[in-house]
Amino acid sequence: MPKLDLSTVPVKTGSIYPEPYATMMQGRSSLRLGDAGGLTQYGVNLVTLQPGALSSLRHWHLNEDEFVMVTEGECWLVEDQGETLMRVGDCAAFPANSGNGHHFINRSASAARFLVVGTKAKAEVATYSDVDMMVRIEGGKALFTYKDGTEWKGPR
Amino acid sequence: MPKLDLSTVPVKTGSIYPEPYATMMQGRSSLRLGDAGGLTQYGVNLVTLQPGALSSLRHWHLNEDEFVMVTEGECWLVEDQGETLMRVGDCAAFPANSGNGHHFINRSASAARFLVVGTKAKAEVATYSDVDMMVRIEGGKALFTYKDGTEWKGPR
Repeated sequence: MPKLDLSTVPVKTGSIYPEPYATMMQGRSSLRLGDAGGLTQYGVNLVTLQPGALSSLRHWHLNEDEFVMVTEGECWLVEDQGETLMRVGDCAAFPANSGNGHHFINRSASAARFLVVGTKAKAEVATYSDVDMMVRIEGGKALFTYKDGTEWKGPR
Repeated sequence: MPKLDLSTVPVKTGSIYPEPYATMMQGRSSLRLGDAGGLTQYGVNLVTLQPGALSSLRHWHLNEDEFVMVTEGECWLVEDQGETLMRVGDCAAFPANSGNGHHFINRSASAARFLVVGTKAKAEVATYSDVDMMVRIEGGKALFTYKDGTEWKGPR
C-alpha cells in the first residue's frame, strides 16, 4: 500500500552532533517518511519543532539539494541574508553547494512542522556556518572535523 | 532568497501525452517549485486538480522514486490494489520499478492540491497500467511506444 500510515512510523529524536550541539537540538523530532515508504534516492522527513527548537545547526550541503514546505505552525528561516518567517504552505529550496547556510527556528508558542526532502548522495559534506565544524558522511558513518580538516575535539 | 514566492512561479498546464490522453488531463495544473528554486536532482511540483481532474494516466516509473503529500482538499489514490482516499497531510511513496501503477483523481467538489517529488534520472521509462503505452524520456525528449516497443500510433 503506497499510502503511509504515519502513526506507525517511528519518531526519531536525538542528534548525531557531538556535544554541546546535540543538546541544542532538543525539542526536534522527525518521521522518516521516505524510508518508511521504501524510497532510496532521497529522504523525506516530517520534522516537528517544539517551541524554541532548532532544526539543525545552520549548514549548507556540498552535494545534496534540499527542499522544505511548512505544513503546520510557523518558523523562522535563518540564512546569510537574515531571517524570514515561514508559514503553512511556504516553501524554500536550497541547491547543493550554495555556501549559504540555513536552519529553522520555532519562536512561536506552538509546535511547527515541515516536510524536508534531501537527496541521498553516496558521500556528503555539510559545513556549519556559525561554528568551526564540518562533517563528512559516507557509508553511514559521520566524521566531524574543523574546517581546516583536522579532527574535531570540541568548540574552538 | 531560498524562500519561494509562489505567486511568481509559472502555472504549467497541458500534457506531453498524445491525444486522446492529453485532453483527459484537463483540470490539472502545477507549479514547478524545485525548478523555480534552482534544484536539479529532483523535481518538486505543487499540483492542483480541479473537481473531476486526473493527475496522470495510471503509471509507474522504472528509475525514479516518487513521493506525494496532499496539502489541500482530498483525492483518491488509485493503484493495482484499489482506491484509497487521501486527505490533507496524507502521504504516499512509490519506489522506482514497483510495477504498480498509480494516479490521483479528484472526485470532490473542490480543488485538491498535492506536493509531488520525483528524482530526475538521466533516462526514465514510465509504463501506463491501463493502456498499451509507455514512454522513454531522455535529453528532454519523450518517445511514446506500445509496450512491445513499436512506435505508438494511437490507442489499440
